[in-house]
Amino acid sequence: MTEGVPDEDSVRLVFLGGLGEIGRNCFCIDAGEIVIVDCGLMFPDPDMPGVDLVLPDFTYLRENHERVAGVVLTHAHEDHAGGISFLLRDVDVPVLPIYGSELSLGLARNRIEEADLIDRVRFVPIADGERRRIGPIECEFVPVTHSVPHAFAVAYHTVSGTILHTGDFKLDLTPVDGRKTDLARLGEIARRDGGVRVLLSDSTNAERPGFTPSETTVGAAMRGLFREHEDKRFIVASFASHLHRVRQVVEAALAAGRRVAFLGRSMTQNVTLAREMGELALADDRVVDIEDLARYSPNELCIVCTGSQGEPMSALALMAAHEHKYVKIGPDDLVVISAHAIPGNESNVSRVIDSLHRAGADVIHGGSVHVSGHASQEELKFMLNLVQPEWFIPVHGEYRHMVHHARLAESVGVPAERVLVCEDGDVVTVTPSGADVERMAVPAGYLYVDGIVGDVGHGVLRDRRNLAEEGVVVVIVTVDSRTGEVITGPEIVTRGWVYGPEADDLIEDAKAAVLASLREAASEGATDYETLRRHARRALGRFINERTRRRPAVIPVVMEV
Amino acid sequence: MTEGVPDEDSVRLVFLGGLGEIGRNCFCIDAGEIVIVDCGLMFPDPDMPGVDLVLPDFTYLRENHERVAGVVLTHAHEDHAGGISFLLRDVDVPVLPIYGSELSLGLARNRIEEADLIDRVRFVPIADGERRRIGPIECEFVPVTHSVPHAFAVAYHTVSGTILHTGDFKLDLTPVDGRKTDLARLGEIARRDGGVRVLLSDSTNAERPGFTPSETTVGAAMRGLFREHEDKRFIVASFASHLHRVRQVVEAALAAGRRVAFLGRSMTQNVTLAREMGELALADDRVVDIEDLARYSPNELCIVCTGSQGEPMSALALMAAHEHKYVKIGPDDLVVISAHAIPGNESNVSRVIDSLHRAGADVIHGGSVHVSGHASQEELKFMLNLVQPEWFIPVHGEYRHMVHHARLAESVGVPAERVLVCEDGDVVTVTPSGADVERMAVPAGYLYVDGIVGDVGHGVLRDRRNLAEEGVVVVIVTVDSRTGEVITGPEIVTRGWVYGPEADDLIEDAKAAVLASLREAASEGATDYETLRRHARRALGRFINERTRRRPAVIPVVMEV
Repeated sequence: MTEGVPDEDSVRLVFLGGLGEIGRNCFCIDAGEIVIVDCGLMFPDPDMPGVDLVLPDFTYLRENHERVAGVVLTHAHEDHAGGISFLLRDVDVPVLPIYGSELSLGLARNRIEEADLIDRVRFVPIADGERRRIGPIECEFVPVTHSVPHAFAVAYHTVSGTILHTGDFKLDLTPVDGRKTDLARLGEIARRDGGVRVLLSDSTNAERPGFTPSETTVGAAMRGLFREHEDKRFIVASFASHLHRVRQVVEAALAAGRRVAFLGRSMTQNVTLAREMGELALADDRVVDIEDLARYSPNELCIVCTGSQGEPMSALALMAAHEHKYVKIGPDDLVVISAHAIPGNESNVSRVIDSLHRAGADVIHGGSVHVSGHASQEELKFMLNLVQPEWFIPVHGEYRHMVHHARLAESVGVPAERVLVCEDGDVVTVTPSGADVERMAVPAGYLYVDGIVGDVGHGVLRDRRNLAEEGVVVVIVTVDSRTGEVITGPEIVTRGWVYGPEADDLIEDAKAAVLASLREAASEGATDYETLRRHARRALGRFINERTRRRPAVIPVVMEV
Repeated sequence: MTEGVPDEDSVRLVFLGGLGEIGRNCFCIDAGEIVIVDCGLMFPDPDMPGVDLVLPDFTYLRENHERVAGVVLTHAHEDHAGGISFLLRDVDVPVLPIYGSELSLGLARNRIEEADLIDRVRFVPIADGERRRIGPIECEFVPVTHSVPHAFAVAYHTVSGTILHTGDFKLDLTPVDGRKTDLARLGEIARRDGGVRVLLSDSTNAERPGFTPSETTVGAAMRGLFREHEDKRFIVASFASHLHRVRQVVEAALAAGRRVAFLGRSMTQNVTLAREMGELALADDRVVDIEDLARYSPNELCIVCTGSQGEPMSALALMAAHEHKYVKIGPDDLVVISAHAIPGNESNVSRVIDSLHRAGADVIHGGSVHVSGHASQEELKFMLNLVQPEWFIPVHGEYRHMVHHARLAESVGVPAERVLVCEDGDVVTVTPSGADVERMAVPAGYLYVDGIVGDVGHGVLRDRRNLAEEGVVVVIVTVDSRTGEVITGPEIVTRGWVYGPEADDLIEDAKAAVLASLREAASEGATDYETLRRHARRALGRFINERTRRRPAVIPVVMEV
């Protein structure tokens, strides 16, 4: 493990998450004091049962908590900002300054308030192009376009030169709000003395050729849909944070003479925020309360809701399952899923779409009603050519995305030995003469969070997977504490194993096997608890394996009386 | 439930699987005697833990077993043929005739042999264009192209007219083996007296616009890759049944002067079969035994293997995990995944690709190295226009695929009231005057199979999901059978719940809560086993919910002594 403070002329980049997975983006710049760049969460894979979210391992920050100067928030998506409340809980920083655009801070605020930790943070709103010293580092916030408004790339002007982190970005040349990526300023930074020593750039779409289409193309597609399906009630599902998308849907609906309703807690929260901040122009009399939907005919309405990922308790999933209190789906409905399924969510999305079809609705998903918020290959090369970094580190992506991004960098002339494909836990030290990687220098495993219970260890997760695959069998006996003789039992209870008449026979035979084993043990003089437990476990495990070739969790309980 | 035999002038179509899901394709034509058309399995979703495969419900066939005339196999993919051994086990038919192309029968044979049921079947090889009476039905086998060679559409000439089932198909105009879809014969059938009364057609790609490219385009892509990467060792993963794909890879490898090796049990089995049947021309001296790989340099080899779906124990997954005995992956390797991830497998495929990149290999997936085996929208419309059916029933697909296919049919002029979107369990009776649907007329639920244990009920599956999400807590007490007084315990054991020091405290408190509740019950005179169990369960459940807001499975065990 990398110890202590870096040399005075050096800066360390400590990668805690997002290099090798989509999500839990978090890295630190250690220049004596530590700037944390983003602190995101990751949504669990299907093979992480009961896990609500996955976090970075905060060990490094816990051990260096007194040197933490603040958090820079490039933008407020959950995979960049959703871990802050957990960071506050785990890392001893009395009041944590969080730097970001006003909108990012507004979006991040809710989760921190819900965790009742709002007095542990100090929000520092940053204007486009602003420079701000955080600890020893001069941080410059450069506007970039992404699928949430007011995102930043950040240039960290350090003793070892400028480190430029793009954050999540695309090069949208016609963004919805007219706030463009400040290409000229990026060029200027690249041309200054020393230029960009290290570029850290978003790898999410590094496998995708060409350019990502502008967000405004979705607005045109939505306007077309409203024209084509003027008799239908529109239900549009999108990410609640994608305020440009919401804005375009709302504008297209208003232009078609419709009223809009918002559904889903985060959607209503974010829309309220966007309206307050002037990001969404929408007169009160064009908004319909969800309770009043029945007063309007289908062709007067557009419902904007959450659930684009098929999340089981989301507004859209409840509608699809006929469980929504106010919205009943039928043949009058056109559902537009204005999002792409995040890997792992495909089955849920597919299930929701099928249910909507069964209810008679028309469903449009994929195609022109969604564009990515991440730069494709040509944009990534554009960024590399513009910035001309001395060193390049691909970030934000599965391992293969970073490998492809590394190849793009080499294809535009970054020397291969200056392209560093790093992983979570790696530490890169940027010195006046170069950059060194220390592999797996800090703990960076997955921290599994189960909503209420808290952290779930790898052991619990392994148990859960085994329980799910094989079930559990508990065997209980009461024995005489002096003689080891069985008084009652064995009793056997199971969950998730086998049921039915065959199971009853199996369980009777299993009891007999355990009893025989315990009697044998007692006859050999074994009376102690541990020996009897071991016998019970072994006899039962062997019996089950022979008869069913399965390996459920076998739990022996010996009660001494 | 539809009872008894259909009227003499009627035929019933009984849908047991594949209408509303990808997989377990199976329907029956009941014309007094019953012809079973395909009998496939489905691979489980991630939310079916411990389930190895999903089958059709065979209740209808069990109840009508004495009228079963045979099985028609359109082709031998697992989702059309993989359920036959289970059908043989569950349905009392002394010897079941199975009709199909020689290759289909050869491919289906292995699984039936492995289940030791080969003496329960009689294979009846069918030539292209052959007509064969099965029970009262004249069945005509029309060649179609698909992603396995020698697939059939089948025209069932019945008393109620001709029912045409496309099977899985695409309209490959330049198939690898030159065996084309017999479009002219389909046209002839359509123009005969009565034409096609009912068309049942493959809906898998009904959402995909345009034409599916020819399989031969993959051969061209592979030849290009061998030229571009002539120094690399090639490892190509594909479905073992996709013998045209394997053939094209092998031919491209041989043309590049390489030798080939085959990896994975089903791959080696199927390649042996294909060579025996003349479907794959490959001289012995161009085949390398897997043990001898080390004797050749990378640029001399092409390994063809299973694992294109990221299946955890497949050849490719073992290589990616550095656990393959003979193949070590490194920077000399180019891995080509010549397949598309089946829905539900995306995470596994993604994990394998990442591991291969970590090992330094280059990976090509998607793009030109794979084409679908299913007809896209223009081909589906072509089939509808060619056949001009009186009635149309989309089959083989998720519900939304069938809805889209239905719309395609309407768009080419099939009257909407003659387009029947059916689901598993529906029965369509074709009479001289029309066709009537009876919804959910036969049992058609999922039959879950857990390799060794056998069928898994819905209850077990629900338990397993709950165990996986929440874990299990077992509480055990020994009580005096006369007084109800607690003698030892409560003891609490858990799996998949919480661990660590906090858990110990929680468990101590839980024990106290259970004890208090049991003492209260005893003081109120409750001594019987059931009452005490109920008290223990309720006290513990309430305690856990209050303290952790979770609902693990709570199992109370009361031992009376």
